[in-house]
Amino acid sequence: MQLTPLEELKRRVQVLQFRLRQEDLDGALLTEKMDLYYFAGSMQQGFLFVPADKEPLFMVKRNLNRAKQESTWEKVLPLQNFKQLAEYVKDYACRDLNRLGLELDILPVNQYQRLQEQFPSATFKDISNLIKEIRMIKSDYEIAFFRKAAEISLQVNRRIPELLKVGKPEIQVAAQIESIFRNMGHQGLIRMRAFNTEMSYVHVFSGENGFYSSFLDTCTAGRGLTAACPQGAGWKPLAPHEPIGIDYGTIYEGYILDETRLFSLGPLPPELEEAFLIARQIQEQVIARAAPGVFCADLYHLALETAVSRGLGDYFMGYREAQVKFIGHGLGLDIDEYPVLSPGSKHVLQPGMVFALEPKFIFPGKGMAGLENVWLVTEKGVEKITLIPDEAVIVSY
Amino acid sequence: MQLTPLEELKRRVQVLQFRLRQEDLDGALLTEKMDLYYFAGSMQQGFLFVPADKEPLFMVKRNLNRAKQESTWEKVLPLQNFKQLAEYVKDYACRDLNRLGLELDILPVNQYQRLQEQFPSATFKDISNLIKEIRMIKSDYEIAFFRKAAEISLQVNRRIPELLKVGKPEIQVAAQIESIFRNMGHQGLIRMRAFNTEMSYVHVFSGENGFYSSFLDTCTAGRGLTAACPQGAGWKPLAPHEPIGIDYGTIYEGYILDETRLFSLGPLPPELEEAFLIARQIQEQVIARAAPGVFCADLYHLALETAVSRGLGDYFMGYREAQVKFIGHGLGLDIDEYPVLSPGSKHVLQPGMVFALEPKFIFPGKGMAGLENVWLVTEKGVEKITLIPDEAVIVSY
Repeated sequence: MQLTPLEELKRRVQVLQFRLRQEDLDGALLTEKMDLYYFAGSMQQGFLFVPADKEPLFMVKRNLNRAKQESTWEKVLPLQNFKQLAEYVKDYACRDLNRLGLELDILPVNQYQRLQEQFPSATFKDISNLIKEIRMIKSDYEIAFFRKAAEISLQVNRRIPELLKVGKPEIQVAAQIESIFRNMGHQGLIRMRAFNTEMSYVHVFSGENGFYSSFLDTCTAGRGLTAACPQGAGWKPLAPHEPIGIDYGTIYEGYILDETRLFSLGPLPPELEEAFLIARQIQEQVIARAAPGVFCADLYHLALETAVSRGLGDYFMGYREAQVKFIGHGLGLDIDEYPVLSPGSKHVLQPGMVFALEPKFIFPGKGMAGLENVWLVTEKGVEKITLIPDEAVIVSY
Repeated sequence: MQLTPLEELKRRVQVLQFRLRQEDLDGALLTEKMDLYYFAGSMQQGFLFVPADKEPLFMVKRNLNRAKQESTWEKVLPLQNFKQLAEYVKDYACRDLNRLGLELDILPVNQYQRLQEQFPSATFKDISNLIKEIRMIKSDYEIAFFRKAAEISLQVNRRIPELLKVGKPEIQVAAQIESIFRNMGHQGLIRMRAFNTEMSYVHVFSGENGFYSSFLDTCTAGRGLTAACPQGAGWKPLAPHEPIGIDYGTIYEGYILDETRLFSLGPLPPELEEAFLIARQIQEQVIARAAPGVFCADLYHLALETAVSRGLGDYFMGYREAQVKFIGHGLGLDIDEYPVLSPGSKHVLQPGMVFALEPKFIFPGKGMAGLENVWLVTEKGVEKITLIPDEAVIVSY
């Protein structure tokens, strides 16, 4: 089992400590599961106390044994309750803790109130944005996992055409793709940090089902099987000459590669074929412009302008009022990382960012035409991590 | 697509309103996804305002179209932001809102602070416990879904023996079971309300891997494939004469049936076989005692006493310090519903409760011996919902 090397954890924590000192914080108390995995190398019920000036303390309620095996930090302690947490932290800090950072984007009010009781003289500051900005820049250690995921995705993608048959329900296709992934070691779960969300790792949506989005901030999600799980593959049988969108998250050591490809049984109607080609042109334009220092918001506007100039503004990234306001998003241990390629983004591209770019058109009653690839920002420009070819795949039937 | 009938939603909301008035609350603002599904029939990004005295208002940020299709409530409105939420609520209530109930077990601090800004004169009370107590009592409409899930589980379970082969990695078994489930319409996701958790829907753990638990409050979880997802099937090949535990959640229309069965390739060692029989005896004792009015805590103590009297106290529900303090838990749209059969529970059994009872023994280096079935509390006593036979299944190899 691969463990995050101590040197990698140290590097990450040093960046966090630098930011904590900039914000005049005495330390951070982290609990979100992927933050714990990122900064402690182990996902547990518990807290990681990161003082601004020394090594962190990993306090674990469950599962202590596993935390000791997985985390390469030296200080891993058993945790009973919030009272003990405060005692550990105060003892270890050896000084007054006036200002502490917390993940207020996800921390429930009940837990926050317990922390307030235990640290009555402390002020808590939200550091969720700061943490997302740290996790936004990937190390070589992390980038290698995306490359591995890209190799797996290529192998899985090659097997998709043989799975597509006229009359076969979407859910059967999804079940087969998931099975291929799982046999190759996919963890079977995908993660999104946004509150109150969840995500299937294989979305299959054919024809009009490509028009269905969901509570997720995505322009497609699929029809789903029931109202109790309104996303992913539905019961609809595949039909000829319809766009079959397959949007999936390959995962390697927790790192998510988010890609979408378009398939069809027989040729697509010219309108959708044309829209697909425009989506590819938008991708090429955005990537030609993308480089360190470029504003993410500018890339969004560039894409939108092309869509509008080609008469497809109403269909770009969703249909009219259902449109989402981004053309891409950062990837990592969560599928919704920074940067977001959106009009409201303040981020500029920086080396080490990994993002999905997904120009897509949604036509009511007809479905989705577009694609999604994953890119790495380098010193020189942008490098494609995705290995699967960009073409829409027409399968004979 | 099955929609929750308006009569069912009305009944649920009436119970909530009764409890709100008891607590002297003017209304509730709900946002947790399964609470929205339960009280509005549709899982969206948004809020359901339930005044203490009239029909609810469903305010939906994403996806409005889908919410209108799925929710049988009349009032479904588009929501932009927290300011508009407050305007809608104040207009609709037609009176001052001094005391509002919120789901403080899951609501993040950031969102809470935005609500405080928009309702400066209101006091917020935590109603998460109250909501869990309402969802704890299942209607006939809900109970029918558990029975459907039990039929599916029976069909899947019958196919497990043929999947077990010496040398086959756990993950391949899990992939096959998942594929069978998905083809039968399983949503592929399972839900847990507890903060910061996630759960695979098929756990396969053989031999010593049955000793591995995780950050989840469960006595088994499996080894998992990587530290990035420390639960579920691992890479370990199945071996003869080892316990193979398969713990899975069958889902029908969102309702989760949580069951565990023990398999082996060739007979188990006598120690494990004996422990399995004791687990079954504990199940029989607990079920013989279980009836409306019986304290859940008493059922826990009854089970523990038997385990101790048979010399297996150190192994019951985990090994020593890793033990979990429950023998069963409520089921519904989440896998961790009320009641909990734990020493700290204040609940008594009531008709309409559905719970999993899971007496299990964990032996270091050897694995798990036990079982898990699902039960419904009726007016007279307790009825088994699970349809699969209780026996441990020995597969020839």
